Amino acid sequence: MARYPQRVQLIDVGPRDGLQNEKSPVPAAVKIELTHRLQDAGLTEIEVTSFVSPKWVPQMGDNAEVMAGLARKAGVRYSVLTPNMKGYEAAVASQPDEIVVFGAASEAFSQRNINCSIAESIERFAPVVEAAKAAGIAVRGAMSCTVGCPYEGEIAPSRVAYLAELMKGIGVERVDVADTIGVGTPIKVQKALEATLQYFSVDQVSGHFHDTYGQALPNTLASLELGIWNFQSSIAGLGGCPYAKGATGNVATEDLVYMLHGMGIETGIDLDKLVDAGIYISDFLQRKPNSRVAVALINKRAG
Amino acid sequence: MARYPQRVQLIDVGPRDGLQNEKSPVPAAVKIELTHRLQDAGLTEIEVTSFVSPKWVPQMGDNAEVMAGLARKAGVRYSVLTPNMKGYEAAVASQPDEIVVFGAASEAFSQRNINCSIAESIERFAPVVEAAKAAGIAVRGAMSCTVGCPYEGEIAPSRVAYLAELMKGIGVERVDVADTIGVGTPIKVQKALEATLQYFSVDQVSGHFHDTYGQALPNTLASLELGIWNFQSSIAGLGGCPYAKGATGNVATEDLVYMLHGMGIETGIDLDKLVDAGIYISDFLQRKPNSRVAVALINKRAG
Repeated sequence: MARYPQRVQLIDVGPRDGLQNEKSPVPAAVKIELTHRLQDAGLTEIEVTSFVSPKWVPQMGDNAEVMAGLARKAGVRYSVLTPNMKGYEAAVASQPDEIVVFGAASEAFSQRNINCSIAESIERFAPVVEAAKAAGIAVRGAMSCTVGCPYEGEIAPSRVAYLAELMKGIGVERVDVADTIGVGTPIKVQKALEATLQYFSVDQVSGHFHDTYGQALPNTLASLELGIWNFQSSIAGLGGCPYAKGATGNVATEDLVYMLHGMGIETGIDLDKLVDAGIYISDFLQRKPNSRVAVALINKRAG
Repeated sequence: MARYPQRVQLIDVGPRDGLQNEKSPVPAAVKIELTHRLQDAGLTEIEVTSFVSPKWVPQMGDNAEVMAGLARKAGVRYSVLTPNMKGYEAAVASQPDEIVVFGAASEAFSQRNINCSIAESIERFAPVVEAAKAAGIAVRGAMSCTVGCPYEGEIAPSRVAYLAELMKGIGVERVDVADTIGVGTPIKVQKALEATLQYFSVDQVSGHFHDTYGQALPNTLASLELGIWNFQSSIAGLGGCPYAKGATGNVATEDLVYMLHGMGIETGIDLDKLVDAGIYISDFLQRKPNSRVAVALINKRAG
């Protein structure tokens, strides 16, 4: 049998990545309450909001209000997404523990998503990373489309290595290997991770898998086998797949925690409280949690 | 990286295990068409129906009609479930390639499900197995609740070994290790498989995982790592979980095939035709396929 890490650190991206594409506005108070429920359930890393122009992401327009409203808990890392120096300056005023910059392993995706080449996107982030580090703020780099791209199809591991090298070059301290469209399967995901591990240590690499094709948990298992012990997920599976209407996006934190606990791997998370946090936000959004574990446990509770 | 089998053999249990709990009658013609679509998609093992009293499972009351209506394809194995000698005799008249007997690794489940102890259930199957073997019909043993039981909770691997030994003792040729309520996670499933591998070779053991808690694919990956290369699944995820209303039951064949093909493992199955077969039966049942791959591909086809 494979050796697995004894402990896994989860980053819940629900409040930011999960909610950002919701069409109806979610009040700041709901986002704050969701973040509080996540930290009460034992999450110690939460991606709270983004400091992107509200013209592009109106749902995150209340970023400063949300950050100011948090009753911060000791030992919890609150991170925010920052696309440029303007976003960074606004972000810093809200005192995040970590900022997140992002790039794609696919040129086509980079061009269509942020209107510039991969290399240009990294140049743009360089001063943000420098400023954050000078201010003692941690920096994470989100690497999207590391397995497949909606425009280019399959992405070669060498493209992932290229992006990881650029991220390393500007001083990013740790990176997320994201399967943005959820097309990855275990061996492909291991190759993307191995490409990244050429530039970052196993403690600096996190897996971020979408469940669009139901592959997020086997991909997580395949990552654990490489020693990866940081993963991102979204409470109640918040965040559909913008490239396949009605399809699943982020893997649900509940599903991931169930697997890890079943394997005897510690997360520090209380699954029941986590399910309750998912019910809270799902009720607000008037839908069922997009988590098989949540649905099964809700049915079980109902007897 | 782990070594995985190069080829996987899938048994689609949709027509039997998937449809048996449907409340509205599904006409024999629809079951036949579904079976034909599965074989056209490349499935070479299909669990077609059961020869159980129609008092208990009315949906399978058309068993003889369904078996008689099949346009059998060379190289395809058609199996049927048989609970006792009466069922066996009716089954044999329909010329199955394989009969399936079943037992539980949980005493409480055995008592509640078939009203006798595990040992008694095996005694009851002994003449069925003997008769089948004398008639040159293959025999498979379905072992349910090998990880968890809705009444007893967690099941020890030694209970699985006990059932496997009994199955071996009456001449069963191969067995399914089923996680009937879908509570298993990778290491637990490996332990249930290893207990079974004390009595059966790796070529004689198949994994049958329910996706109630979203764990079927990681459990499959964990099984592949032990060399297991036979798995059961259900087209469109047919067959909910009778122990958790509204929850998912059998893993969808589409999701399993997507993972295997993504890993370069051959199945002989055409995923597009498989998705079409799932759409066919889901349309009849007036619901969406309970398969993330099917939903994602249907959305992709729609552009």
